[in-house]
Amino acid sequence: MDERVREHARIIVDHSTDVSAGDEVILSGHPRASDLVTEVARLCGERGANLAIRMNGDRARSAYQRAIDAENVSESAVSLASIEAADVVIRVRADENTFESSDVDPAINAAFARANEAVQDAMLETRWVGTQYPAPGNAQAAEMSTAAYEDFVWGAVNKDWDDVREYQSQLVEILDPADQVHVVSGDETDVTMSIAGNPTQNDFGEKNLPGGEVFTAPIADSVEGTVHFDKPLMAQGREIRDVSLRFEDGEVVEYSAGKNEAVLDSVLDTDPGAKRLGELGIGMNRDIDQFTYNMLFDEKMGDTVHMALGRAYDDTVGDENEGNDSVVHMDMIVDMSEDSFIEVDGERIQEDGTFVFE
Amino acid sequence: MDERVREHARIIVDHSTDVSAGDEVILSGHPRASDLVTEVARLCGERGANLAIRMNGDRARSAYQRAIDAENVSESAVSLASIEAADVVIRVRADENTFESSDVDPAINAAFARANEAVQDAMLETRWVGTQYPAPGNAQAAEMSTAAYEDFVWGAVNKDWDDVREYQSQLVEILDPADQVHVVSGDETDVTMSIAGNPTQNDFGEKNLPGGEVFTAPIADSVEGTVHFDKPLMAQGREIRDVSLRFEDGEVVEYSAGKNEAVLDSVLDTDPGAKRLGELGIGMNRDIDQFTYNMLFDEKMGDTVHMALGRAYDDTVGDENEGNDSVVHMDMIVDMSEDSFIEVDGERIQEDGTFVFE
Repeated sequence: MDERVREHARIIVDHSTDVSAGDEVILSGHPRASDLVTEVARLCGERGANLAIRMNGDRARSAYQRAIDAENVSESAVSLASIEAADVVIRVRADENTFESSDVDPAINAAFARANEAVQDAMLETRWVGTQYPAPGNAQAAEMSTAAYEDFVWGAVNKDWDDVREYQSQLVEILDPADQVHVVSGDETDVTMSIAGNPTQNDFGEKNLPGGEVFTAPIADSVEGTVHFDKPLMAQGREIRDVSLRFEDGEVVEYSAGKNEAVLDSVLDTDPGAKRLGELGIGMNRDIDQFTYNMLFDEKMGDTVHMALGRAYDDTVGDENEGNDSVVHMDMIVDMSEDSFIEVDGERIQEDGTFVFE
Repeated sequence: MDERVREHARIIVDHSTDVSAGDEVILSGHPRASDLVTEVARLCGERGANLAIRMNGDRARSAYQRAIDAENVSESAVSLASIEAADVVIRVRADENTFESSDVDPAINAAFARANEAVQDAMLETRWVGTQYPAPGNAQAAEMSTAAYEDFVWGAVNKDWDDVREYQSQLVEILDPADQVHVVSGDETDVTMSIAGNPTQNDFGEKNLPGGEVFTAPIADSVEGTVHFDKPLMAQGREIRDVSLRFEDGEVVEYSAGKNEAVLDSVLDTDPGAKRLGELGIGMNRDIDQFTYNMLFDEKMGDTVHMALGRAYDDTVGDENEGNDSVVHMDMIVDMSEDSFIEVDGERIQEDGTFVFE
């Protein structure tokens, strides 16, 4: 087994989720990630955890979702019961084909998300982590050889996360007490929002592996202006390109996409919260130096900012504030490397990707 | 997709488990069985069922079980909660390597079985079926090409199960009201037992697919004599050969095995019920015409009888009787094709594999 797989597994089990004796652990993963899943399982055994292994069946899942009528979509009592019984949830992503769900009706996807909101809520109550195995399908999506993609993934994942926490805390200290944020990039992105009273989180590889961002929630109705998202994203098994949004009083009042605008329609229509921002994140992982069509990595890339439509995570919403509620959480990325800046309460904290503390 | 896969899936969903709108279904399968799992999932979608797909990770499971200490083995709250929430459980077996768990300590295997007895009980309360996909690893175990093994599996599975029920009911009518059963084969098997008051079940492809046996439970303390099991069996990922058992007052008082006797030791030691018989079954599926090292098929072979150490299924225990209780249920097979007979209350009902009604 590749030594990098062992290191990845050790970080998952000890750093991200702190698996201990007696913990009820759900380990899910794609069959293509068998090496990493097997090593994580071995470590869970060594730690004395109680392990349930649930590998993905993505072809079967898509076949099921293509066949079902919307009226029959409902909450999975099986999934809810199992997540509620878990202390730790470890999800190892991998794909044989990143377009496997590309022909599931977006309305059905949205219906499943709505019906299973409680399952998602229960998952967020556990010590959970989502990570990536460098499978050939994901290398293909990144337009890289599998060997090069392995270097990329393990370069971003296998690092000293305590050092990362320390480096990123410089930005947390700026944002945590702040109110107004102003993001400008090129001619098309000029947006302001308040983050007053909302805690800023330091993502150093706990819930997401790789980590490498600093994030908080905008005050939902404070967002004003326009954003052009330069980078494509995958949603519901499809690629959406060139998304532009215009916000008034926090709500999307105008939008367009250069590709698969119908998927964007369906996302925005899911519920009222899907038209508002739930997250402002700033990518700081400089080991992620190229875009790979995978939000887990893309959103942490250095010289980028991302904003998510939909749900605000509880730990980014201050006690005095109300978090945006939705079953959607769709991240989209703005390139900040050129002709760009971020101002916080009138002070420029980043210019063309370089922070004031760098 | 192979038309035989579609037929197999249809039998699973409609005949064996009667999946209907709103049913909570757990579908588990090996990644090698992806074709069949995908088609079953599609049908579950068409029927409007609520589906949770959980593919096996057998390498990971074995790594976990090799690493854990016996003192940390306990009931999986996650597995129990999910099974308790299910109406239907569909298990599609397949193997990449039928010896994947061959180096897990038999004591750990037994500890997991004991700790998770309630999970097993809950599964038996659902509409469950266990079936087989003809994967190359299983073809290898059967010493057949994959193509020949596909013919074998689908020949045994894809048939008119109503015809089977009718044919087998002739034997049910003999055994259901009977008391004494006497099984003799060659010089080494001569055993008597009572089945008085215990219902005889007709297995026509509901819980096991293929079906093709008629079975009941012996009165646990009535078993007397010796049995030599001619056919090898797989237990805990290992092959056990040439098992001989001697029963007094229903209990195994002497035993031996020609290969892996230590595994037999561990099985018999699991709990008190593991030393008593929980099942007497008579194979009647003549489409299963060769031994393939797979109990799901072997026990239904024509011209065989099988007996299981351990648990008696509830539906084979009469209201006046007590069923044998154990977490073990290990089937073993006696060849009845030559120099053999079965007598029921003194009447010879089978001789050298041929029934009186044939």
